[in-house]
Amino acid sequence: MKIIDAQLNPTIGALEANTTKIINAIAEARRNQADLILFSELTITGYPPQDLLLLPHFIEQTQNQLQRIIEASENIIVVVGLPRPNPENKEKPLFNSAAIIQNKQLLGFQDKSLLPTYDVFSERRYFEPANRVQIWELHGKKVGITICEDIWQHSALLTDTSYRKNPIQELISLKPDLLLNLSASPFSITKLSNRLKVCAKATSALHCPIVFCNQIGGNDSLIFDGYSLYLNAKGELLQIAKGFEEELMLVNLEADSSPMTLSFSYVEDLYHALVLGVRDYFYKSNFHQACLGLSGGIDSAVVACIAVAALGPKNVLGIGMPSRYSSPGSINDAKQLAQNLKIEYREIPIEKSFESYLETLSPHFAHLPTDVTEENLQARIRGMLLMAISNKLGYIILSTGNKSELAMGYSTLYGDMCGGLAVISDVSKMQIYALAHWINRHREMIPQNSIIKPPSAELRPNQTDQDSLPPYEIVDNVLQAYVEEHQSSEYIANKFGYSPSLVEDLIRRIHRNEYKRRQAAPGLRVSEKSFSEGRRFPIVERWIK
Amino acid sequence: MKIIDAQLNPTIGALEANTTKIINAIAEARRNQADLILFSELTITGYPPQDLLLLPHFIEQTQNQLQRIIEASENIIVVVGLPRPNPENKEKPLFNSAAIIQNKQLLGFQDKSLLPTYDVFSERRYFEPANRVQIWELHGKKVGITICEDIWQHSALLTDTSYRKNPIQELISLKPDLLLNLSASPFSITKLSNRLKVCAKATSALHCPIVFCNQIGGNDSLIFDGYSLYLNAKGELLQIAKGFEEELMLVNLEADSSPMTLSFSYVEDLYHALVLGVRDYFYKSNFHQACLGLSGGIDSAVVACIAVAALGPKNVLGIGMPSRYSSPGSINDAKQLAQNLKIEYREIPIEKSFESYLETLSPHFAHLPTDVTEENLQARIRGMLLMAISNKLGYIILSTGNKSELAMGYSTLYGDMCGGLAVISDVSKMQIYALAHWINRHREMIPQNSIIKPPSAELRPNQTDQDSLPPYEIVDNVLQAYVEEHQSSEYIANKFGYSPSLVEDLIRRIHRNEYKRRQAAPGLRVSEKSFSEGRRFPIVERWIK
Repeated sequence: MKIIDAQLNPTIGALEANTTKIINAIAEARRNQADLILFSELTITGYPPQDLLLLPHFIEQTQNQLQRIIEASENIIVVVGLPRPNPENKEKPLFNSAAIIQNKQLLGFQDKSLLPTYDVFSERRYFEPANRVQIWELHGKKVGITICEDIWQHSALLTDTSYRKNPIQELISLKPDLLLNLSASPFSITKLSNRLKVCAKATSALHCPIVFCNQIGGNDSLIFDGYSLYLNAKGELLQIAKGFEEELMLVNLEADSSPMTLSFSYVEDLYHALVLGVRDYFYKSNFHQACLGLSGGIDSAVVACIAVAALGPKNVLGIGMPSRYSSPGSINDAKQLAQNLKIEYREIPIEKSFESYLETLSPHFAHLPTDVTEENLQARIRGMLLMAISNKLGYIILSTGNKSELAMGYSTLYGDMCGGLAVISDVSKMQIYALAHWINRHREMIPQNSIIKPPSAELRPNQTDQDSLPPYEIVDNVLQAYVEEHQSSEYIANKFGYSPSLVEDLIRRIHRNEYKRRQAAPGLRVSEKSFSEGRRFPIVERWIK
Repeated sequence: MKIIDAQLNPTIGALEANTTKIINAIAEARRNQADLILFSELTITGYPPQDLLLLPHFIEQTQNQLQRIIEASENIIVVVGLPRPNPENKEKPLFNSAAIIQNKQLLGFQDKSLLPTYDVFSERRYFEPANRVQIWELHGKKVGITICEDIWQHSALLTDTSYRKNPIQELISLKPDLLLNLSASPFSITKLSNRLKVCAKATSALHCPIVFCNQIGGNDSLIFDGYSLYLNAKGELLQIAKGFEEELMLVNLEADSSPMTLSFSYVEDLYHALVLGVRDYFYKSNFHQACLGLSGGIDSAVVACIAVAALGPKNVLGIGMPSRYSSPGSINDAKQLAQNLKIEYREIPIEKSFESYLETLSPHFAHLPTDVTEENLQARIRGMLLMAISNKLGYIILSTGNKSELAMGYSTLYGDMCGGLAVISDVSKMQIYALAHWINRHREMIPQNSIIKPPSAELRPNQTDQDSLPPYEIVDNVLQAYVEEHQSSEYIANKFGYSPSLVEDLIRRIHRNEYKRRQAAPGLRVSEKSFSEGRRFPIVERWIK
């Protein structure tokens, strides 16, 4: 049996275009003499369609597209993901389904059993779980069909939910010859190794191979990395599709393949994920040009490199906005970076606007000491200048704050937080350093000085981040333990040997700055818990005192 | 049997303070010789606690507070809402529960059966549904205990979910003498009349009275209106607690009461809801002072009136920020409003800053025509000036955009959208007019001219909103039908007799401006579907072309 594992990049809501992509893949599969073509979860709509699923017209049109796919399925088996109306209409009006189609006949649907409702997932908001898992007789084989989460309960890797059902367990007695999985499994830096474990667990329970299909592409905050998989009955990896690219991977179940071992670089994957996230945010909304402020620091340098990789140097505009506190070194580093990247660089000084504000506000600020207000004014003037360039010339602004800053509130709302997309808002400062070194692995793209100098916002004389924050190693350790792992302050203080009051203070800062993050630009999610999507804390609360 | 229906205002996460409030109410109930005191849903934590529920330490502390309540329950029955660990630990680790306590004994828990997971609710993210509904023998009566949504399935008023279970149906055969309901039912302008129907349906099914307890208070976007209820076995309303205020309502089941009829004004309730929402957003986070830009228009005038009602005139600062395009009439209207409200008024002209930007940007804008960029610059200078005042003097900014503008994107990101709280972001323009007339019912607080002049942003000469938007009656009709009711453009065009292309254009604008709303200040929710909370659409999508 020959299978095409169709790893595509659907666009949310582009029902016709996604279906055309599906139909083209079917034609290609037929040319390859494939017997079956497998698509990812909710391919027709793209994942996650969110509340588009609540629009009756949207669901109706999705079913119309299914008809087009059925028409196109001559002499081939097609397994494709889509939402479908729940005929019983209890409790939720939809199923998250796989349509099984053979030679212009719809054989039926396999609905998803396990509906993740945690972190970035809200599937119980829309979907009803499957009534049962069944075996499909396809091309002489007994095939079990599962959708994403369905195979995860069996792995014991889930932490947020422990489902009552376990579709893999249910399938054991049905003795499938082959397991298919349609996924929309978003990237995070530990995800691929977990997926391999999950697939291996399923195959060893069922003693049959698995073909796992993931989508690729960026959809707002979520990035899907692809890496579709084929494992044999022993749980050995035989084939893996590309990461971050579309691919029609041909799997021949009868071929004699030897197991492969994977070596992958987390930093490299992180970089490619961010590049794809930027590219799709732009291309899928028909924008092509980005601008960003270049401070001469490491964060904006890394974002500029990612933007150039995503959009090309001609489509990226770097803007230096020096102030009275900018060091000459920083301005030079920004210029040098632009030169290295071959992007346009403009300089727009903020001094005149800064003076105009100080003058306008002087009657109101008389006798009051200089404080963070004046720092914020500078950051906000920069935000306004970028927005003016954006409005007049049609660029989308990339904001350059990292996750550690966003956690600590070390950023200015309506200032450096301005932008259409917060590229590195889920990347910690330590990961930024790793990215910078990786980017510079062949030659110096990011000026060495941007990497080694002490981080500074340069909003007052001789300022450095560490004037008001502990070292970023400490911030990042607490961030990981508290935000991603929900550890208590006592546990964290013990684990790292930090003082309890330091840890409590950092946790307090995380909560107290929720109000800022709520107004942040949407950010690309690359960790197990991002601020942008999947973490929902109240702004006004008294848990943290 | 005498019951205290304890309608309190808990603060999210303030476990100790909320519990102290509960214990004080128990003491007061005892002084009133009450046999039972009923609290609202999740009173110990406040509703909605969101992802605080995922912190193990938070749940542990909540259980400790329950012990304090048990200790305080001498000679009285207490029914109080809290999250509790699911002992089975399948699938979700918590139940949304009512603890039933009598004379220092915990009798047990009644868990919630129906877990809303739609609109602003995400209960399946945290909670497992109840295994069963039971009868509690309390003070010689057979008492059924339900939590919020539990009584709604029976009413046939739910549209988003049709639950398989129906706790009211389950209770029928158990023949309760009394039904209790612990709610956290957020305000919207049709909610009270629906709650009355729901309670009446339950009592007529069970042939017993209901005591319904709702919380009051603002928690970020959600506003809880109270209006706790007592209906007799015939479904007639006998008592109703105050709206928008705490109250310990004494219900005597044996007293001979006659049914009452309710008359309520939606506009008045809307006003009180917004006042409470502002007050609690400030007080619960220990802020007391608000500032806002006064343009002389109706929107900022209505927000100023609400702020004064919430915080007192001494705590509200109005700031006029005239530009070259401001009409003298507008400036006078703003001053007159401040005088009527007895609030401080300051004037900070934006001209100098505007000129400085134009000068700074002139090398980049040379030969390019004036466009929306220059309009946005003015709006953003105002936002920056407000933020500078906020930073330096400790005010929280109230933003003044209404729902119709937010839907259309008729607002400037980082400009008039700046603020800590978007007070009227879920109030349509037509409702703003109704509020203004209601505020002026006794005497002219809002200058008549602000109400009757054509709406204008005054960002270029002789501009009015209707230069780029259809009349607000049309916008608001489409908004209601599309955003709140999910009607198709065809249906809407037919229903109102609008041209299909007009309706499609308005719907397109709603979707195209998702990116702006994503960065809006949190807004108070008062409709069935707000942009701030409960509506989740992708930014990048191709459903709307």
